[in-house]
Amino acid sequence: MCQLMGMSANVPTDARFSFTGLVERGGGTDVHRDGWGIVFYRGKGIQEFRDPDPGAESDVAELVKVKAIKSKTVISHIRQANVGEVCLENTHPFTRELWGQYWTFAHNGQIEGIQQRLELGRFHPVGSTDSEHIFCWLLAQIEGQFVSGAEDACRLGELLAGLARDLHAQGVCNFLLSDSRNLYAFCSTKLQWITRRAPFGTAQLKDVSVQVDFSQETSLNDVVTVIATEPLTVDEQWTVMQPGELTVFRDGEVVCHSTPL
Amino acid sequence: MCQLMGMSANVPTDARFSFTGLVERGGGTDVHRDGWGIVFYRGKGIQEFRDPDPGAESDVAELVKVKAIKSKTVISHIRQANVGEVCLENTHPFTRELWGQYWTFAHNGQIEGIQQRLELGRFHPVGSTDSEHIFCWLLAQIEGQFVSGAEDACRLGELLAGLARDLHAQGVCNFLLSDSRNLYAFCSTKLQWITRRAPFGTAQLKDVSVQVDFSQETSLNDVVTVIATEPLTVDEQWTVMQPGELTVFRDGEVVCHSTPL
Repeated sequence: MCQLMGMSANVPTDARFSFTGLVERGGGTDVHRDGWGIVFYRGKGIQEFRDPDPGAESDVAELVKVKAIKSKTVISHIRQANVGEVCLENTHPFTRELWGQYWTFAHNGQIEGIQQRLELGRFHPVGSTDSEHIFCWLLAQIEGQFVSGAEDACRLGELLAGLARDLHAQGVCNFLLSDSRNLYAFCSTKLQWITRRAPFGTAQLKDVSVQVDFSQETSLNDVVTVIATEPLTVDEQWTVMQPGELTVFRDGEVVCHSTPL
Repeated sequence: MCQLMGMSANVPTDARFSFTGLVERGGGTDVHRDGWGIVFYRGKGIQEFRDPDPGAESDVAELVKVKAIKSKTVISHIRQANVGEVCLENTHPFTRELWGQYWTFAHNGQIEGIQQRLELGRFHPVGSTDSEHIFCWLLAQIEGQFVSGAEDACRLGELLAGLARDLHAQGVCNFLLSDSRNLYAFCSTKLQWITRRAPFGTAQLKDVSVQVDFSQETSLNDVVTVIATEPLTVDEQWTVMQPGELTVFRDGEVVCHSTPL
């Protein structure tokens, strides 16, 4: 299995605090040592860092921990390989261009035999993971149902929720997906989130002895949501998503929410 | 304008020496300070680093200069913006997936009005450069003429040479393109290369006071070709490409060569 981390914010915000906690689980406090990656959206572009080495020991991760890259949408992943060997092409997040936007996907879970069951369109995996196969299939479904990236995020969320529930019925499929502006979070078994806004308090990471006083790091109107497989902090109340639930975040806020009937 | 750097080698080789010389031109010894990027192929995957900041001042570039990432195919670029503002989505190299392979492209030049003249297929630019538009168009032409990435590199090189010469007739279009295994280099106005093989000697960078003794860094059978807009070293003989010439490199060797009639 793996762990996911996402961030959605209304102003470009640095994700160093959350990332520092997450990558420690990449061979430090936990077993997800088979590579890691992070994608920062900056404008329409993306800045990505990835490494097949354990996050807790990676010099690239060290740089990301100290470089204050400010972004409104972030997706990160630490991997414990089950399907597909440990190598760069199997390292999440995966990215593809559709309609002149970069789409980014990271997955936690495993669906036995899914590569035989999901027929692909024009997007093809480069590596051998079920995750990248699922991403390519999802993008083809999106392209088949919508005509551009300017579509309503909630309608796209409904489509994704339906597809994701079909996948969830066949295995474990927690994921984060972004079209650059919206962050789609689907909970199959485990996903939690927290929104920080004024009045800002302090928080203590679970995996590393690091505390932050958000009131020193933010402005009064900032809204920042962090999504993670397991809470990254010990002294905040995270919202636990339900199996089958899909939530769409934009600018730090929940814009839509779909639960199974 | 911009500057290009590429590497093709028969064994995974680190490109730190060449990269160190190149990024110094990004605001240090030269004016190409509007962002930089580098893509390393490792297996089928890619590890990329990019920054809209000047290469000579970038902390990400500092990391790439000291991290011995070994790769058989590398494409790098430093930018001096002409078309498109300075931002991450306009920072080369650009990457797309086709046939389950990552294709990477970096361009040096400018072709006035090309965005109006080249009709795109399914690949779309995310940023606003003529370069990314040209890349998307080239990929669509490749996909239209070939059925998979297993096609003969020389045939693909011939197709590219024809297309590139049409572009060259309309403006300046030096480029490096890779399908992960082959490196296609097209010279419109300025591109040079050097192949290093046994017996290895020493070389001195032009832009920084750095010298390397390749005999200490390589094995007897290594073959490493470096391609650059301007020679990166002062004491080696670089091969100057001719306008309209396309050369295909694989595993450090020239595999095909196409010159205008």
